[in-house]
Amino acid sequence: MKIRKINLEEREIPENWYNIIADMPNKPLPPLHPGTLEPIGPDALAPLFPEALIKQEVTTDKWVPIPDEVRNMYSIWRPTPLYRAYGLEKALDTPAKIYYKYEGVSPSGSHKPNTAIPQAYYNKQEGIKRITTETGAGQWGSALSFACQHFGIECDVYMVKLSYNDKPYRKMMMNTWGANVYPSPSDRTEAGRKILAEYPDSPGSLGIAISEAVEMAATRDDTKYALGSVLNHVKLHQTIIGLEAIKQLEKAGSDLPDIVIAPFGGGSNFAGLSFPFLRLNMEEGRGIRCIASEPSSCPKLTRGVFRYDFGDTAGMTPLLPMYTLGHDFIPAPIHAGGLRYHGAGVIVSQLLKDQLIEAQAHDNLEIFEAGVLFARSEGIIPAPEANHGIATAIREANLCKETGESKTILFNLCGHGNFDMKAYDDYFSGKIKQHELSQEEIDTSIARLGTPTIPV
Amino acid sequence: MKIRKINLEEREIPENWYNIIADMPNKPLPPLHPGTLEPIGPDALAPLFPEALIKQEVTTDKWVPIPDEVRNMYSIWRPTPLYRAYGLEKALDTPAKIYYKYEGVSPSGSHKPNTAIPQAYYNKQEGIKRITTETGAGQWGSALSFACQHFGIECDVYMVKLSYNDKPYRKMMMNTWGANVYPSPSDRTEAGRKILAEYPDSPGSLGIAISEAVEMAATRDDTKYALGSVLNHVKLHQTIIGLEAIKQLEKAGSDLPDIVIAPFGGGSNFAGLSFPFLRLNMEEGRGIRCIASEPSSCPKLTRGVFRYDFGDTAGMTPLLPMYTLGHDFIPAPIHAGGLRYHGAGVIVSQLLKDQLIEAQAHDNLEIFEAGVLFARSEGIIPAPEANHGIATAIREANLCKETGESKTILFNLCGHGNFDMKAYDDYFSGKIKQHELSQEEIDTSIARLGTPTIPV
Repeated sequence: MKIRKINLEEREIPENWYNIIADMPNKPLPPLHPGTLEPIGPDALAPLFPEALIKQEVTTDKWVPIPDEVRNMYSIWRPTPLYRAYGLEKALDTPAKIYYKYEGVSPSGSHKPNTAIPQAYYNKQEGIKRITTETGAGQWGSALSFACQHFGIECDVYMVKLSYNDKPYRKMMMNTWGANVYPSPSDRTEAGRKILAEYPDSPGSLGIAISEAVEMAATRDDTKYALGSVLNHVKLHQTIIGLEAIKQLEKAGSDLPDIVIAPFGGGSNFAGLSFPFLRLNMEEGRGIRCIASEPSSCPKLTRGVFRYDFGDTAGMTPLLPMYTLGHDFIPAPIHAGGLRYHGAGVIVSQLLKDQLIEAQAHDNLEIFEAGVLFARSEGIIPAPEANHGIATAIREANLCKETGESKTILFNLCGHGNFDMKAYDDYFSGKIKQHELSQEEIDTSIARLGTPTIPV
Repeated sequence: MKIRKINLEEREIPENWYNIIADMPNKPLPPLHPGTLEPIGPDALAPLFPEALIKQEVTTDKWVPIPDEVRNMYSIWRPTPLYRAYGLEKALDTPAKIYYKYEGVSPSGSHKPNTAIPQAYYNKQEGIKRITTETGAGQWGSALSFACQHFGIECDVYMVKLSYNDKPYRKMMMNTWGANVYPSPSDRTEAGRKILAEYPDSPGSLGIAISEAVEMAATRDDTKYALGSVLNHVKLHQTIIGLEAIKQLEKAGSDLPDIVIAPFGGGSNFAGLSFPFLRLNMEEGRGIRCIASEPSSCPKLTRGVFRYDFGDTAGMTPLLPMYTLGHDFIPAPIHAGGLRYHGAGVIVSQLLKDQLIEAQAHDNLEIFEAGVLFARSEGIIPAPEANHGIATAIREANLCKETGESKTILFNLCGHGNFDMKAYDDYFSGKIKQHELSQEEIDTSIARLGTPTIPV
């Protein structure tokens, strides 16, 4: 029998997260105060995050210890399995060897609890009573609800209204773990009320929901905020994925991959799998290609600009140096694949700027074709977000077929699609169509920026 | 760090299923022809099932080899993890040690693929082009869709209309794996049309859906039928669960359990976990209590009669010796916990008759209380069916607390609740209420039977 899954024991859960900042040839530029345009220090984050996480946000230590209580909670679903995709390889008739790391085995069904658990843990340590957050497709909100429930912290989730209406099961899941869920824009915050006054029918966006959640945390003493992607400490926590994957490939007797692929929303999914492999590139001179897979409806990496921009729509965050489409960019409603955030986290942006990583974009229709092929050849129905990584893997495996090369490809299957069956139904009933984002739309959005450009 | 999950390697997937018939002190009584009331042989099943499965249905071999191709497909999700329920133990403050075997890691999210895969495999071997089946909550239909997709067999699923309307995501999941799904009663069959003529608004039942699927298979040459529970070969395939669990308890250094618990619908879930432990009782004189957990809204084991009855509502199957509430018994619509089948499989019925196993019933409200406690203490949101087993485990763990005994309890967490969030939402919004089934309702249903009683 060919071995399909490579498992690790609980005791093999890594004891440290990996901090890529320590190894980066060019460190990320500092965040700026939006008024003075002066660099700001970590203190500015104090109203929003507990001290321990702010320290992790700016640390240059290469390895950051994972607390025992976090490792203990990780053991509910970690180590996650690494699969050899024999079924997909056969369906593609490719000489490539394809592996995927499957993060959908977590209770909330994605990689998001990898950071939700430590974030809730550090908040608990510092006596925080409530955490606010935003969620788009619902993956992050579910993960944080699960984590807060365990540590006895109240959890308020601002959920993009479009998803709130389209994905009632996600909301119910968060309720089951005891969270409060509000459709965003809501009338509970200044930011929400302002949007509603101008666009009463606004379907919401991740940027708006962030503004609401940040406002609630910034104005209450016992309340902090949690972000599910973009920030350095979030990426740090996610490196557990790649660290496990390296051990598993070794256990499988496989070579290191030639290509490492992960979906890209704000960057934590991609960072999680790829940073430990980038370490090998930087330390040992390996030539592993790391590719971020983004939707062509929200192509900040492949068509955005590298510039200072706000992390949210209302402009409440510091200015961050990032690849962006402009902080008020909202992907076309026809886009059903998630990953709708306007910008990329600062570490990943710097890595792309320095050409240490690559990016590829995929159309909405292509990613559902990829997802259905995967479901039918491997059995697991992937989340639409995950389908972006699959689409890149298929593209690279097809190139191998053309050239006859037997490359090793590894991608992050970041979650299952159990809560996304409506999107698949839309695909089967022909409602998902190709969508071309015009250069004019991008230019217009970026022209609205009014933030400083970065001297090259 | 305390070890929470006990995993096995793929090569440790058992190589044989266990057939309890070989060890039963009293073998099950034969099925009867409904017209002649004479015992019928395996030939009568030929229109419905492939030869290999009919052989398995009647075999008295103690061990039945698992084909390599089936073990290879099993490896997509098997061996499934065995968990020590530290969180639940703490929440209950019980001296009991609680373990659960988690079958929700399969692609369709339940234990059902354990038999769907071999059933599709044997049909494929014999050149069958299409398989028909019924599904209630959707677990079985999804599993068979997944299996048929892999083996290139067309799959027609008759889905109880109430579930078809309430659980659109389940239908979409089956569609994603390429199956055709019809709400039952449908106008595609004689059985369906007859019900619709009499009750145009019928919400359907598992018995009706079975009649429809059986009719389609019986009247077409290239089509066979597949059942997801009740029959001997289905129970046989599910024993992989208990066989793995025994290896895992040994690996964990745990004693054998004092109590083994599983939810009970038609019997395959319960058989799967408990039969390998019953073998130890019969062979080695162990005293492991095996408890079947059923809903008090459909209490065939605790309040039914042991009698010959039809397996389906329309009376198309042979008469089977079973604990039953009468083949036209339909649980109250208020019952949201699944496990709605009117009877129990013949093996389990005989075992209960011989007092080799036990049964307990739980109210609708109690099982959701149990499920929410579990979700909040262990992280995983269970399927409502699974909540029955949890409810029994909690009851037994609470008894341990009273007596101070530190018993070892093992239950089957047969599936996750990702597709059942509406039921949880109903629970939180107070729509799920206690429901008392009167003795008169049961008596009336059984009085309609008109089938031969079994001489005691």
